[in-house]
Amino acid sequence: MRRASAIYPGTFDPLTNGHLDIIERSSKLFGRVVVAILLNPQKDPLFTVEERCDLIRASLSPSTDNVEVDVFDGLLADYANQQSAEVIIRGIRAVSDYEYELQMALMNRRLQPEIETLFMIPAERYSYLSSGLVREIAEHGGSINGLVPGPVEDALHAHFK
Amino acid sequence: MRRASAIYPGTFDPLTNGHLDIIERSSKLFGRVVVAILLNPQKDPLFTVEERCDLIRASLSPSTDNVEVDVFDGLLADYANQQSAEVIIRGIRAVSDYEYELQMALMNRRLQPEIETLFMIPAERYSYLSSGLVREIAEHGGSINGLVPGPVEDALHAHFK
Amino acid sequence: MRRASAIYPGTFDPLTNGHLDIIERSSKLFGRVVVAILLNPQKDPLFTVEERCDLIRASLSPSTDNVEVDVFDGLLADYANQQSAEVIIRGIRAVSDYEYELQMALMNRRLQPEIETLFMIPAERYSYLSSGLVREIAEHGGSINGLVPGPVEDALHAHFK
Amino acid sequence: MRRASAIYPGTFDPLTNGHLDIIERSSKLFGRVVVAILLNPQKDPLFTVEERCDLIRASLSPSTDNVEVDVFDGLLADYANQQSAEVIIRGIRAVSDYEYELQMALMNRRLQPEIETLFMIPAERYSYLSSGLVREIAEHGGSINGLVPGPVEDALHAHFK
Amino acid sequence: MRRASAIYPGTFDPLTNGHLDIIERSSKLFGRVVVAILLNPQKDPLFTVEERCDLIRASLSPSTDNVEVDVFDGLLADYANQQSAEVIIRGIRAVSDYEYELQMALMNRRLQPEIETLFMIPAERYSYLSSGLVREIAEHGGSINGLVPGPVEDALHAHFK
Amino acid sequence: MRRASAIYPGTFDPLTNGHLDIIERSSKLFGRVVVAILLNPQKDPLFTVEERCDLIRASLSPSTDNVEVDVFDGLLADYANQQSAEVIIRGIRAVSDYEYELQMALMNRRLQPEIETLFMIPAERYSYLSSGLVREIAEHGGSINGLVPGPVEDALHAHFK
Repeated sequence: MRRASAIYPGTFDPLTNGHLDIIERSSKLFGRVVVAILLNPQKDPLFTVEERCDLIRASLSPSTDNVEVDVFDGLLADYANQQSAEVIIRGIRAVSDYEYELQMALMNRRLQPEIETLFMIPAERYSYLSSGLVREIAEHGGSINGLVPGPVEDALHAHFK
Repeated sequence: MRRASAIYPGTFDPLTNGHLDIIERSSKLFGRVVVAILLNPQKDPLFTVEERCDLIRASLSPSTDNVEVDVFDGLLADYANQQSAEVIIRGIRAVSDYEYELQMALMNRRLQPEIETLFMIPAERYSYLSSGLVREIAEHGGSINGLVPGPVEDALHAHFK
Repeated sequence: MRRASAIYPGTFDPLTNGHLDIIERSSKLFGRVVVAILLNPQKDPLFTVEERCDLIRASLSPSTDNVEVDVFDGLLADYANQQSAEVIIRGIRAVSDYEYELQMALMNRRLQPEIETLFMIPAERYSYLSSGLVREIAEHGGSINGLVPGPVEDALHAHFK
Repeated sequence: MRRASAIYPGTFDPLTNGHLDIIERSSKLFGRVVVAILLNPQKDPLFTVEERCDLIRASLSPSTDNVEVDVFDGLLADYANQQSAEVIIRGIRAVSDYEYELQMALMNRRLQPEIETLFMIPAERYSYLSSGLVREIAEHGGSINGLVPGPVEDALHAHFK
Repeated sequence: MRRASAIYPGTFDPLTNGHLDIIERSSKLFGRVVVAILLNPQKDPLFTVEERCDLIRASLSPSTDNVEVDVFDGLLADYANQQSAEVIIRGIRAVSDYEYELQMALMNRRLQPEIETLFMIPAERYSYLSSGLVREIAEHGGSINGLVPGPVEDALHAHFK
Repeated sequence: MRRASAIYPGTFDPLTNGHLDIIERSSKLFGRVVVAILLNPQKDPLFTVEERCDLIRASLSPSTDNVEVDVFDGLLADYANQQSAEVIIRGIRAVSDYEYELQMALMNRRLQPEIETLFMIPAERYSYLSSGLVREIAEHGGSINGLVPGPVEDALHAHFK
């Protein structure tokens, strides 16, 4: 029996080393991992959806050849169903994350009972890391080395120089 | 590529419908699920380890034919490694669960970096359910119907009558 | 001695089955329950205050004849005092709710020491439900059946079609 | 319609000013408040159940004439039903309290659907107070003045002198 | 060896008695305490940065002569380093505060490993107090006496009259 | 003005690298740091109080020459007062720690208003570490290298061999 397909949804504006850690851990457990960028027209993004796709692809190591990058709009449960995914993957860093994620997981189960949400924990050295913090540090010229993959670091430097 | 082997560890004294929900969800996602009863000589159990094994086996539906029941002693990370498991499954019901589980998952990752802990959420109708609550209700003659599988309900009635 | 008057404040944009569960539980315990819609000019609402009043009234079962619907502006503590309420009712679903509610309850007690805030828990099948989630699902054409009362379901369909 | 009967259950070993605050607030809202001491044969108590009854009665102000003190054994839901109570009152001080109380409230609702658990918040000056802390301070000769009612203070001094 | 320099950063829009409590406690422990107002151009403030500086200075008791008031922009870790501070002080009131503060403290340690974040707890009578709550109460004409220092109370009355 | 004296209380059965991290951070901020081992006759310890003293002394680096090791009995607030300490230091790793610590800090402030509790965060690589986990791993022959200082590692091996 083939390994399950999994969706790893997010905004990824930008991808951090915490996200990348979850993607690489997932790629070992599942047959196919779709990193799915949510189109959120209300938020004012730092990078366009196309730039974010390119940055994720450029940051993946060649060994993670079962990882795809995609963009979706609308309800995550519907998108996961269209992709024939059995699993939604979410990283949890903190209790406040957990409560929100619990609410979303129960709602997604209601909308698509056959799709299971699984929670993973990033490496503890990334436990405090978020895209928002990275943007704030980069904007004020602080060092983001070690917080994001190389291609994202370059793109942030180019953006804020 | 075959689906991963998973360990679902616990005390299961007794198995509740919340545990069974996690087992059935897991059996759809993984190639093999080992329900692993921790031998805990310090605690004074309600049912012996053998009785708990039998109750779990009697409660599994025939469709979950990739589920095994086993007993282990010592460190979970070592046991999971001996079983060639790639995944440890844990159900989370509450924030206080989450914090303890996070601590255990990080420690287990340190002991066996190749084994990943995945968290699942039981159906919300079991969100308040624990073995301890079931024991307390059964001991005082309250109704446990719907909280535990039929074989466990019978065993609790026999034990406390 | 007559039963106490209670205020159940909120935005109710829209009323969910979780809200309705709290209203019906409250109506059995208190002599009079005022469902009080907060006028919040800063937020961009889905339904007008008048529409929300009508939807709440249309959703109440005939047996809850001690429930009134009203609109208020300004401080909840002042409004509760004007209504001669002894009790403010709040539903709690999660730890993060609890912390915010605790802060509000202590402040309201300071402003009106004679009015007590009481917390209730909705049925666990509504534990993940919020007006925001309902709006998001309805907007993207997902099924909201069972999440909101019939009149609210119709109004959402009419709004987003 | 008469005001509801309420049960305020606990161990009260000993009664603190935080408990007393909840009792006095409850006595204004409900027609009858039963302070119900749980007989817990497993724990090694400081005061006997009879002593605890006497200390609670001695600490109540004369204005709270709708408060009774009782002892119960077994399941709280059964006891509340025997007492024809409509309400179980619980004080919450902290997030960890809240999670445990949520679990108990949902289980009690399952056992007795007609009885509602209501949560109250003690005055913030008692937010850190527990019977266990009071016992520990009194045992080591620290000042417990202001933490417990006068009769309890005297009894603790007599016990630990 | 001289006592350490400490930074107490915040928005202080306006200063509350909870902030003042932390400042006075800090001034006893550290050689120099810099109350540092974050310039946040995105938020629409109630008081200008200059007004907030003046209100903090007017609210400090003469005995706290080791307290300075300053304004900063950019990353807190960089500012603390420029000020030769060894310590960043943060007050925590609630679990949700704690998680955010933990994240910020770990990030600031990464940016400036020599600067330590220390957490203090305000007096429990201020545990529910925030600048946002004070603004809301003052805007609606509620009493803010006892929640903010005298000069802030006057300024709020002048602003909202 | 000389730097403050600080107490870092705990059971330290055994000292972990998380404890040592807090001790070394504290020794830079305070003039004198007393690592104070609580005599807890109720618990069955792994190491005697004398062994724990020796292990802490053997684990301190020579640069931390302002750190003392002591043993205390009774109330921490009384002991801190006898030691003329201005500060009690506590490390926080998780939300559940935080709530307990908050309660203790408020009680200690009540008993000794002049002594301030300050909370520090250990390095995130020790965020999941506790004496209990270390004992459990060592007992089952797992690797504790990197979790405890060298002298503690040797003592654990000697104890469990």
